[in-house]
Amino acid sequence: MNITTHRMEHDLLGDKAVPSAAYYGVHTLRALENFNITGITIAAYPDLVRALAQIKLAAAQANRELGLLDNARTEAIVAACREIIAGKYHEQFVVDVIQGGAGTSTNMNANEVIANVALEIMGHQRGEYGFLHPNEHVNMSQSTNDVYPSALKLATYVGIFRLVDSMAHLRFAFERKAEEFADVLKMGRTQLQDAVPMTLGQEFSTYATMLGEDEERLKEAALLIREINLGATAIGTGINAHPDYAALVCRRLVETSGIPVITSPNLIEATQDCGSFIQLSGVLKRVAAKLSKVCNDLRLLSSGPRAGFGEINLPARQAGSSIMPGKVNPVIPEVVNQIAYEVIGNDLTVTFAAEAGQLQLNAFEPIIAHSLFKSVLHLSRGCTTLADLCVDGITANREALRATVERSIGIVTALNPYIGYANATDVAAEAHATGLGVAEIVLARGLMTREALDEVLRPEVLTRPRPLPTRANV
Amino acid sequence: MNITTHRMEHDLLGDKAVPSAAYYGVHTLRALENFNITGITIAAYPDLVRALAQIKLAAAQANRELGLLDNARTEAIVAACREIIAGKYHEQFVVDVIQGGAGTSTNMNANEVIANVALEIMGHQRGEYGFLHPNEHVNMSQSTNDVYPSALKLATYVGIFRLVDSMAHLRFAFERKAEEFADVLKMGRTQLQDAVPMTLGQEFSTYATMLGEDEERLKEAALLIREINLGATAIGTGINAHPDYAALVCRRLVETSGIPVITSPNLIEATQDCGSFIQLSGVLKRVAAKLSKVCNDLRLLSSGPRAGFGEINLPARQAGSSIMPGKVNPVIPEVVNQIAYEVIGNDLTVTFAAEAGQLQLNAFEPIIAHSLFKSVLHLSRGCTTLADLCVDGITANREALRATVERSIGIVTALNPYIGYANATDVAAEAHATGLGVAEIVLARGLMTREALDEVLRPEVLTRPRPLPTRANV
Amino acid sequence: MNITTHRMEHDLLGDKAVPSAAYYGVHTLRALENFNITGITIAAYPDLVRALAQIKLAAAQANRELGLLDNARTEAIVAACREIIAGKYHEQFVVDVIQGGAGTSTNMNANEVIANVALEIMGHQRGEYGFLHPNEHVNMSQSTNDVYPSALKLATYVGIFRLVDSMAHLRFAFERKAEEFADVLKMGRTQLQDAVPMTLGQEFSTYATMLGEDEERLKEAALLIREINLGATAIGTGINAHPDYAALVCRRLVETSGIPVITSPNLIEATQDCGSFIQLSGVLKRVAAKLSKVCNDLRLLSSGPRAGFGEINLPARQAGSSIMPGKVNPVIPEVVNQIAYEVIGNDLTVTFAAEAGQLQLNAFEPIIAHSLFKSVLHLSRGCTTLADLCVDGITANREALRATVERSIGIVTALNPYIGYANATDVAAEAHATGLGVAEIVLARGLMTREALDEVLRPEVLTRPRPLPTRANV
Amino acid sequence: MNITTHRMEHDLLGDKAVPSAAYYGVHTLRALENFNITGITIAAYPDLVRALAQIKLAAAQANRELGLLDNARTEAIVAACREIIAGKYHEQFVVDVIQGGAGTSTNMNANEVIANVALEIMGHQRGEYGFLHPNEHVNMSQSTNDVYPSALKLATYVGIFRLVDSMAHLRFAFERKAEEFADVLKMGRTQLQDAVPMTLGQEFSTYATMLGEDEERLKEAALLIREINLGATAIGTGINAHPDYAALVCRRLVETSGIPVITSPNLIEATQDCGSFIQLSGVLKRVAAKLSKVCNDLRLLSSGPRAGFGEINLPARQAGSSIMPGKVNPVIPEVVNQIAYEVIGNDLTVTFAAEAGQLQLNAFEPIIAHSLFKSVLHLSRGCTTLADLCVDGITANREALRATVERSIGIVTALNPYIGYANATDVAAEAHATGLGVAEIVLARGLMTREALDEVLRPEVLTRPRPLPTRANV
Repeated sequence: MNITTHRMEHDLLGDKAVPSAAYYGVHTLRALENFNITGITIAAYPDLVRALAQIKLAAAQANRELGLLDNARTEAIVAACREIIAGKYHEQFVVDVIQGGAGTSTNMNANEVIANVALEIMGHQRGEYGFLHPNEHVNMSQSTNDVYPSALKLATYVGIFRLVDSMAHLRFAFERKAEEFADVLKMGRTQLQDAVPMTLGQEFSTYATMLGEDEERLKEAALLIREINLGATAIGTGINAHPDYAALVCRRLVETSGIPVITSPNLIEATQDCGSFIQLSGVLKRVAAKLSKVCNDLRLLSSGPRAGFGEINLPARQAGSSIMPGKVNPVIPEVVNQIAYEVIGNDLTVTFAAEAGQLQLNAFEPIIAHSLFKSVLHLSRGCTTLADLCVDGITANREALRATVERSIGIVTALNPYIGYANATDVAAEAHATGLGVAEIVLARGLMTREALDEVLRPEVLTRPRPLPTRANV
Repeated sequence: MNITTHRMEHDLLGDKAVPSAAYYGVHTLRALENFNITGITIAAYPDLVRALAQIKLAAAQANRELGLLDNARTEAIVAACREIIAGKYHEQFVVDVIQGGAGTSTNMNANEVIANVALEIMGHQRGEYGFLHPNEHVNMSQSTNDVYPSALKLATYVGIFRLVDSMAHLRFAFERKAEEFADVLKMGRTQLQDAVPMTLGQEFSTYATMLGEDEERLKEAALLIREINLGATAIGTGINAHPDYAALVCRRLVETSGIPVITSPNLIEATQDCGSFIQLSGVLKRVAAKLSKVCNDLRLLSSGPRAGFGEINLPARQAGSSIMPGKVNPVIPEVVNQIAYEVIGNDLTVTFAAEAGQLQLNAFEPIIAHSLFKSVLHLSRGCTTLADLCVDGITANREALRATVERSIGIVTALNPYIGYANATDVAAEAHATGLGVAEIVLARGLMTREALDEVLRPEVLTRPRPLPTRANV
Repeated sequence: MNITTHRMEHDLLGDKAVPSAAYYGVHTLRALENFNITGITIAAYPDLVRALAQIKLAAAQANRELGLLDNARTEAIVAACREIIAGKYHEQFVVDVIQGGAGTSTNMNANEVIANVALEIMGHQRGEYGFLHPNEHVNMSQSTNDVYPSALKLATYVGIFRLVDSMAHLRFAFERKAEEFADVLKMGRTQLQDAVPMTLGQEFSTYATMLGEDEERLKEAALLIREINLGATAIGTGINAHPDYAALVCRRLVETSGIPVITSPNLIEATQDCGSFIQLSGVLKRVAAKLSKVCNDLRLLSSGPRAGFGEINLPARQAGSSIMPGKVNPVIPEVVNQIAYEVIGNDLTVTFAAEAGQLQLNAFEPIIAHSLFKSVLHLSRGCTTLADLCVDGITANREALRATVERSIGIVTALNPYIGYANATDVAAEAHATGLGVAEIVLARGLMTREALDEVLRPEVLTRPRPLPTRANV
Repeated sequence: MNITTHRMEHDLLGDKAVPSAAYYGVHTLRALENFNITGITIAAYPDLVRALAQIKLAAAQANRELGLLDNARTEAIVAACREIIAGKYHEQFVVDVIQGGAGTSTNMNANEVIANVALEIMGHQRGEYGFLHPNEHVNMSQSTNDVYPSALKLATYVGIFRLVDSMAHLRFAFERKAEEFADVLKMGRTQLQDAVPMTLGQEFSTYATMLGEDEERLKEAALLIREINLGATAIGTGINAHPDYAALVCRRLVETSGIPVITSPNLIEATQDCGSFIQLSGVLKRVAAKLSKVCNDLRLLSSGPRAGFGEINLPARQAGSSIMPGKVNPVIPEVVNQIAYEVIGNDLTVTFAAEAGQLQLNAFEPIIAHSLFKSVLHLSRGCTTLADLCVDGITANREALRATVERSIGIVTALNPYIGYANATDVAAEAHATGLGVAEIVLARGLMTREALDEVLRPEVLTRPRPLPTRANV
């Protein structure tokens, strides 16, 4: 070991040289050697890093109030945590996002970085743990098994509401289009077959409604995710924690984080349970599946330009092909579809990991965290991308859409009450056989006047329930 | 066609001979020919058959109130529906549970059976649709696209609460055991490694808490599933339905079914959306994953009898092996594990089907229904089976459990505050090296008296937070 | 117990009255009480029942050859098995398809039915096990842990080839259509946007090729599935089996079943491993995903009739709607889509069950069996249904298809080498702006003669590689 | 635009300033703006970048041989590609791994980087595309739709064999342990219940066998993945490609890459099909599920140290807990479990993306690529990690293991042929009731001599088939 470049630290496996410049210590270094899987470090999830610091800060305050931690150390720890919350030292959180050990390495990484930052604040050197110890002081009254899941929950909570904002942003984009297209009449379709008329505005308004509902579901999931287990220590029995600690640390954490966390009523259950994660993952899967359906629709409605539905135009974002001049593809919905497939896959990963928990702990929370963080982030970016780079620029082929309604056979359904079912069936048959339009045939047969027909074909008449013409009881 | 054994019916494909004895008609017969997949008919889901009859009954009442259906037909339809609700004619619901057409065949099957039962009530022959027509009268103001999803929701709602009851039954079983084992001290485990002490009662109480939480999640999912779309007709625009119909049919359906259904505020969205199904499926997956975890624990804790954990004994339910005399296996938890795997697979099927909906309708609701019905039913039977045939008969190996605590090294964690961290580490090291017990070593070294040690080892002291002995600020 | 209606049998739990008429015995009865989950009995899988009988027959023969079983008992067992193979007594296989115990109940059910049938053949009463015992004689040299997985493999092997036949049947249907549509020019599409021309024959030929490849993959999976572990007994060490038994029973089983089974080289591995099941399930998932894609295409190409792609017509199979006169839906592809979603869900169930195996055995093979049997059967029926009720009746809208090519802008790609990239770009731009056809514009601009253009638009020129006109090196 | 820091490029959306230092161009820049999803660029997959360069190199050579590309440009392109293959310029591959557009942006990125590197080699400035054009020359005779899937296949092929090597490395580790533990007798378990004896060597040898089989499956999947579609161009019809191009480019690609790629016999099918990807993904899922099962076993066998199975010891890799002194956890198997869950989730993502392909192309190959690359890489690292940091250091608790056999009741199965079934049952019953060992009881009852018993308990006798003592026909 070069004494100018390294310092010596010790753990149960023996001595180990740690780079002098590092704020992390021996436990983190062991984890670096053990887990070389993805090359992605937990610094990739700043919400998690901040959440860890918020918890350590709240714990230090609680420990001081219980007379377990002195003022000097408390203040140094608090100051160190505030710097991390402000965005500093994140690059020191270096353990792999996929790691064994139920998050122990992540917790150890946080303890060590905070301890060393705090030591510097106190005027000591990194590694002089005699003055302030990662485990003894930073981790006091804590265990990985309560700190780690609680940090995941804080970080996820923040992510959920960021996603909700992105979804609302996309919802507003659909609502604006729904208004813009409120008078654009078109054929609705069931099972990909022409059905009955509706407006393009109604179609887009549907997407807004879907998103609004999903936002509510996410907020409900957030209510479950805010239940933490600080005070549980190793397995939830609270061994070696003061009876007042759980309530106190929760109160301080609410203050620091601004998140209305609550303490689980059964800490043993809370320590082993992944219910709120799997619930959230299920809701994210729901969001993904429905968002994917919307993108499928957008791609279908804009298919063409000549040999497709050709109802709407997505804004051109990039050249679609080097070999086919002028081809433009629906690349933005396509990328959102793929995010959805990823999220659905992540949900399965979460399910496997949650089911695999054994007895008093689920050792597989790191992959749950990794999966949820990716899902929340990518969905959020997908919604923003879809709103800004696609939905906002959509235009309608109004004339073509109206023409499909007039040309459609399905419109005969609406004429049913006016010309009678028998006539309607005859008209439909002639339309099928000849390729002529229903309106044409109705006019040619003199079944309705042009004025009456125009009245029935008005969007506001065709596209909602209406008082039917009186008919004898059939 | 033999006129004594068949009657002739007609649809858009032409004439077709229907067995005289059948209450179903030509549309159902076409579906029988088209969909020969599972051999399981929708009669396998009596909740669905009843829900269809409840909806047809409510629709007939609403139509009469709107002046669209006369008294005679209304009363015949209502009477026919009441018979089906009472359990009759279910064997006439013969279409395959997996079917194309977005549930049209199921709706047609219901229309035809109800029409023919009603015709008999009116004194006519089966097939005399001139008097009362399956589509014109039984299906009046309706479309498959609002009847079918609404029926699924009613049926699912009933199933959910049946499942909640089974889960509560299982929860009570765990609670009784938690009480019985309240004083049984044992080692808690994290990552399958000995951790710190707890009671077996705490362990079983955890399972009860888990179930209680999942019951709440199911009830929340039921609140979403009760939102129906009757009045939407073909695509949600309510074409050919009276403006007052939606509210009226909903009111009548609440009366008939006793289920607090509500009408969706956006019927176009509600007609194409599978959000509440995918949400429920996600919650069922959560229930399954956690129930599977509980069964994994039970199998692990009862492993042995000699070369395993050997902490608890599951009641013997059947001989475990023909080749190994006296072997008894944990067959009940094993069957519940398998139900859980099936439910998780069903959730994926639901996800695929939900994502695949296009434009104004999801054509794949039949497989969603099939998957959800199986999941709800099998989980419900699994919970009852687990409670009655396994949990109720569980016994604890009390002496062995207490011995593992005394023999455990992990117990040293609890002595930390009394003998100091340095002594604790020495004791742990000696225990590792020699195989001796921590208590033994502590006594031999004179670190604590037998009385003091016994006090710390009391379950009520070991297994919850406690005021720690005052120590100088470390 | 009523002695005229019941007989008394005994197991390790004590005495139990068995219905006199039953060929199954006490072990089966215990299983009936323990596993009331699906209501579907293993008789639903006749391939499995036959495979069990084939194995018991081969084992009896091998045991006789080793001098372990006398002639009289051997011949009675063989005769009983032959009756079951011929289709008799299947209704006596009554245990639930989802059961705990790694298949023990299924094996016990087989042992008991065979023993009682054999007893009758020997002139004894059912239940007189002193003459011939289910475990001692029918199960001799065997364990559930080698019999059950081997029976699953035999049954699955048969099912795979039945599925391969159905797929070939569907492949032939696509090949006939490919020939019929060989000269029908149309626009190919990428990302749902018009791309370059192809023939409808090429499109259908693609589906045939896909199926052919999947048939090969299934045959490869069958080669893995035929590896059995008879002779392994309890955990693969072959305890209490004669060293020559494994080879002998395998030889007899090949003779009886006609299936080229082989014995695994590592019986311990083979007894705990579910590799060949998960492999097969993965291939079935592949088949399902691709078949679903084909059905998606068929539904898309037949969308319309007026406001869709309208390229092909699927045969009408049933009325599509009661509310919309004349509507016909793609119900056959839709049912196949749903089968695909079910199969993909089943694959996940298999994956969970396979992963959950512990140490020397996978206790969850019953749900693996249930999932695989359903997938194989439903896919097989889906392929036959799709071929007979849909593909065979497909017609093409030839004129409309040719018109889309002529109207298409994408066709300009093919003119590139003849009119130059700059001209092509100008033509494309004018087509976009005016809605005119590329051919029209090219002719109007005098860039090509009608003859030259017709030549390039000939399907055989447009739809395959061709020697390009010489051009200076660009 | 600052002319010293940027150059101007042009595409169908208009002019755009590109940083002068960039080797990529306007198309890549558009993609950067469009796809801001993961923050991970395709440079993260060097195998893919190399594969793209290999294909572009082979295409340039083929084009020259067909007289379509001159020597100067060919040589510049070839030289540029060789630099990329050697590892240079990878940081210029900047598009997001999740992108819309079926890989167009990845192909464009490659075309632009290669063109600009080649331009510098020719003595020109970056962006002087008049001399050598990304689409006209680098992409000549190609389309994204044949280049991109072919590049994925090359890259995946390389990854598969790297994974096979890692698995073999792990297999060797298990084989060495199997040899080391060949004489360590232990109880085998089925359904977590004590069954019959085996050796620890047999148990570890099983894991080696499993891995060996999976290696074979991966090699089979590689045989399918090597089938490329170069020459297909846009949709597989080979439009604008020379009839000899496909064969020629394949030959050159084999030379450059050293990979035995072959050209698909049906290029239209090959262009839209994701069969080989979904097949590979299924095999990776199989590998993951089985590897996870092995890790579950290792964690179970090493559970304890006092209150678990305690059969083997995993090497300590890091401190397991800050709160529990001396606790060591099975962190290496745990991380491999989590990789397995991720891979199983990735398989679902691949399945969704594969199923979603429409008509002549699958637009979702980027997420397929991302999922497969992650799975292959993480599994490979997981195997190496498991071998080096865990399996190599495993030790056995030999005495404890032998004691469990002697103490076991299950051992009575082996005595069956020597003391008779009735005596065996009595002995088992006494053992259950008293807690005594079977051997003890047998000796006490004088049923066997110590010598005879020791003979039967010899590992080589207990753990394989043996000629049984002659017995009268039972």
